[in-house]
Amino acid sequence: MTVHPFRGVLAPVLTPFKADLSPDYDRFSAFCRWLLAQGADGLAVFGTTSEANSQSADERMKMLDGLIETGVAAAKLMPGTGACSIDEAVRLNKHAVGYGCGGVLMLPPFYYKGVTDDGLFGFFSEVIQGVGDSALKVYLYHIPPQTGTPFSLDLIGRLIKEYPDTVVGLKDSGGDWANTKSILDAFPGFGTFAGSEVFLLDTLRGGGVGCITATGNVNPTGIRKVYENWETPEADALQAAITKTRKIIQSRTLIPALKTIVSHYHDDPAWATVRPPLVPLTAEEQKGLIADLDADEGFSIASATLEDAAE
Amino acid sequence: MTVHPFRGVLAPVLTPFKADLSPDYDRFSAFCRWLLAQGADGLAVFGTTSEANSQSADERMKMLDGLIETGVAAAKLMPGTGACSIDEAVRLNKHAVGYGCGGVLMLPPFYYKGVTDDGLFGFFSEVIQGVGDSALKVYLYHIPPQTGTPFSLDLIGRLIKEYPDTVVGLKDSGGDWANTKSILDAFPGFGTFAGSEVFLLDTLRGGGVGCITATGNVNPTGIRKVYENWETPEADALQAAITKTRKIIQSRTLIPALKTIVSHYHDDPAWATVRPPLVPLTAEEQKGLIADLDADEGFSIASATLEDAAE
Repeated sequence: MTVHPFRGVLAPVLTPFKADLSPDYDRFSAFCRWLLAQGADGLAVFGTTSEANSQSADERMKMLDGLIETGVAAAKLMPGTGACSIDEAVRLNKHAVGYGCGGVLMLPPFYYKGVTDDGLFGFFSEVIQGVGDSALKVYLYHIPPQTGTPFSLDLIGRLIKEYPDTVVGLKDSGGDWANTKSILDAFPGFGTFAGSEVFLLDTLRGGGVGCITATGNVNPTGIRKVYENWETPEADALQAAITKTRKIIQSRTLIPALKTIVSHYHDDPAWATVRPPLVPLTAEEQKGLIADLDADEGFSIASATLEDAAE
Repeated sequence: MTVHPFRGVLAPVLTPFKADLSPDYDRFSAFCRWLLAQGADGLAVFGTTSEANSQSADERMKMLDGLIETGVAAAKLMPGTGACSIDEAVRLNKHAVGYGCGGVLMLPPFYYKGVTDDGLFGFFSEVIQGVGDSALKVYLYHIPPQTGTPFSLDLIGRLIKEYPDTVVGLKDSGGDWANTKSILDAFPGFGTFAGSEVFLLDTLRGGGVGCITATGNVNPTGIRKVYENWETPEADALQAAITKTRKIIQSRTLIPALKTIVSHYHDDPAWATVRPPLVPLTAEEQKGLIADLDADEGFSIASATLEDAAE
């Protein structure tokens, strides 16, 4: 049976910025520790929700340096290491592998559109061979709404076949269950994660390994409950509850909404800062979101403050 | 009257790669000199056609260093300095301004989709203020097919109003003449370039300053003829000839097609190499393209070899 480096509920960790928009290392490390304390099975730092592509490769690597220094276990980390250029992707991956990160989440090169599977296979081959380390464990990051560049079943199959010990899984953030299902059916034993907890129960029933989800930043305990109880009679009701919460949040602009939630429930206004081109929610939008969540019985963000978690 | 740092026909210079996919500095410098010798009014190095986003920021800066060292006038250069992150865009822009480049071509941050004009205005403000140099002359790079992030008229107007001495022009690569026309009408005196020579004559008649076009890499003299004669009775016939040639080329995958043409007519097979995720044309596709161009009376690539130009 395949041994997966990751299973369960992972959060693509939000990145806190200071008022001058520089990364806030202390808040970041404290938040990572809080997520793990809440039961997150891993941290997909530098994902889409992390505003990773609003940070340069140097910034991301410095942030990982800082996180490792605070003692977070590298095996729990699945940093985003995708880039449009082979050399930058190799550099980010070598850095992550050097720390012993459990895996990496790799975007396809996302500038050029309409590229072929041959071209994408060539890109991933160059990166994997450029890293040249059997410790590299790649999760493919399928997120066509941002990249315009899907991973086809054929491409996934070719990559698994050529690099069976390296290409170990995928995050499907396409929002299309039929696509996730087709991956689960085509590649049993592959480490397939849903990209949203809306599909968590279906993914687990279909043979997948969990979800890597933006809202894992604010509702990790609720989502974990589905993961822990997916084979019990309560599973569907638990799934319905987290789906309801998810829909409240994603009816807003997702990343600023999540930062609003952290800011509010952790009582830390600085958390609401986003980097351009994103903009924060307006005061009105913030109020509406919090009111909706307060009225949502299924939602209970742990009341521990970041400082508590840091202790 | 506005003094524009650039007017006429600019080529977004193709980037030659060696067999190991590393940048080929010598071929790049020789090709830049050849383009200028053919009459190119400027070189938009590190554009889309340059596969710039398949190169890291470090690679692009090293390439610019090399080009400047060979004596190409910085005033003729409009490097692409766009990036998804503010800090990387600041770094690329400072580097270009440090050499005295005539201008820069700046993409919007292209990972996040559906971003607001406020967010984009914030991004450009941070970059411009981060560079903090009145020598910075920004051309906005409107290319929604790649970025999914258009520059609206409202956003262009806000940027011009806030940074009148910095935001001096735009390249419209949207392929939609109605959009170019609306920019020309809304902002007379702004340095608007067509993104394809198909719209060169219309752009000049509408008050624009020229074109920055992929096919400027292979047909600079033909395109220059339209620019030089746009107010003469021959203008429409000259335009029809370059439009015909353009259509032959762009019916193929553009970047590999252009590299095929350079490779063939400069008798230098190494030029056909592209970086993944792009793939070269097949031998069959290459043959068809060259046959179509040989049959195109309007097309006459200068027979000077790259070595001649380098002398």
